[in-house]
Amino acid sequence: MKSRAIVLLSGGLDSATSAAIALEEGYELIALSFRYGQRHSRELSASIDLVKALNISEHFILDVNLSLWGGSALTDDQIAIPTEGVDPSIIAITYVPGRNTVFISLALSLAEAKDAQAIFLGINAVDYSGYPDCRPEYLKAFEQLANLSSKVGLEGRAPRLIAPLLTLSKTDIVKKAIELGIPIEKTWSCYQGGSKPCGLCDSCRIRDKALIEAGYPQLASVYQ
Amino acid sequence: MKSRAIVLLSGGLDSATSAAIALEEGYELIALSFRYGQRHSRELSASIDLVKALNISEHFILDVNLSLWGGSALTDDQIAIPTEGVDPSIIAITYVPGRNTVFISLALSLAEAKDAQAIFLGINAVDYSGYPDCRPEYLKAFEQLANLSSKVGLEGRAPRLIAPLLTLSKTDIVKKAIELGIPIEKTWSCYQGGSKPCGLCDSCRIRDKALIEAGYPQLASVYQ
Repeated sequence: MKSRAIVLLSGGLDSATSAAIALEEGYELIALSFRYGQRHSRELSASIDLVKALNISEHFILDVNLSLWGGSALTDDQIAIPTEGVDPSIIAITYVPGRNTVFISLALSLAEAKDAQAIFLGINAVDYSGYPDCRPEYLKAFEQLANLSSKVGLEGRAPRLIAPLLTLSKTDIVKKAIELGIPIEKTWSCYQGGSKPCGLCDSCRIRDKALIEAGYPQLASVYQ
Repeated sequence: MKSRAIVLLSGGLDSATSAAIALEEGYELIALSFRYGQRHSRELSASIDLVKALNISEHFILDVNLSLWGGSALTDDQIAIPTEGVDPSIIAITYVPGRNTVFISLALSLAEAKDAQAIFLGINAVDYSGYPDCRPEYLKAFEQLANLSSKVGLEGRAPRLIAPLLTLSKTDIVKKAIELGIPIEKTWSCYQGGSKPCGLCDSCRIRDKALIEAGYPQLASVYQ
C-alpha cells in the first residue's frame, strides 16, 4: 500500500514543487489549502488547477480567517503591499502572524484524521530568510511538538514534516519544478490578485529573478 | 499599562475559571472561541454569556471547521458520544485530532497581532489524562515552538502559555470558580447540545462528580 501524505498547497510555485516531489517519491497525496483572509482568491484557484494537473485525488480547502485580526499586508486591506524591492534585513510586513504554525497545526489534524505518515511543506529558508517560521530549527521544534501532541504521536507514529525545498535557492526550485513537469504558468505567487502578476511585490521579484536565472525568462511576469 | 492576554474560551467551566484567574491577576483580556464544527453551538452561546458576565471587552469567534475531516465523536455526527462512563485507560473517541494544537496556534497568531504577553488555557492534566495535548511536556514544547516561530519570539517576547488549572483536580477547579464568582450555571460542559446537559457523557460525569464533591450538588446536571 502507498504511504499517504498531506501537502500544503498554496497555489504558488514552491508548494506545487513540493507536491510534485512527494508524488515522485510515491506518496498518495491529500492537498490542503486555506481561505485565510488573503487579499485575493487567485492563488486558491491556482491550487485547484494544480490539483487537477498533478492528478491529486483529494483536496480540502479550509476557511480560517486570519484577517479577523489582521497584522499583515496580506490579510489587512489597510496595509499596502510593499513594491519597492526585497529588503532581506527586515521581517516584511507581508509576514502573517503565526500563519505557518496555524497551517501546519491544521495539517497535523488532517494527517491524524486520515492516517497520513508525512506532511510536505513548500517552505524555503533561503529567499525568505526574514520569515521566522521558515527555518530548520522551527521545523524541528514542530516535529517535537507533534510527537507530544497527538494520539499517533504517543504511539510513535507522528507524521514527519518534510520540507524538500528548505535549503534550495529559488533558481534551483524553478529548475526542479520544470524537471518534474510542473505547469509553471498555472502557479500563482504574486501577493496581489488580478489577472496578471504585478511584477513589483517581493514575491514576484524573487520569482522573476529565479525564472530568468534558470533560463525561463518567458515565464517571468514582465513577459505576461 | 495593563498587560494583555488572550484567553481561549470554550464556554465550559475550565476555560471560564482560567479567564477569571487571568482577570484577577490584572490582565486585560481578549477572548477567543471557535466554531470548529462541534455538534452544537450551545457552548458558543455560553462563551458569549461569559464574556458579558466577566466584562471582557473583546471577543473573537473564529470559524475553523475541523469536521471537514472529522475523526472524533465531537466533530463527526456518524460517531456516537460515549455515555457508558469514563475510562481513563484509553484516549476517548471525543479526542479531536490536533484540536488544542490548532487552537493554541490561532491564539499565538492573535497574540502576535494584538501584542499580548500571555495566553491563558483551561487545559487540565488530571481529569483528562487520556488527552495527549493536555500535558505539561506538551505545553513546554509549544512554548519552545512559539519562541522560534514568530517575529515577537525572535525578539524574545513570545507570549507565555499559562495553564493555571493544569494540575488541579476538577473539584478544586469548581471551588476556585465559585471563589472567583464564576456564574457556573452560565457555563456549558456537556458534549451534547440541547437545553439541558445530558448527565451521561464523560464531560457531564466528571463535572457533576466535582460539583457534588465540592459541595454544590444543586448545580449538577441531575438536578437541572
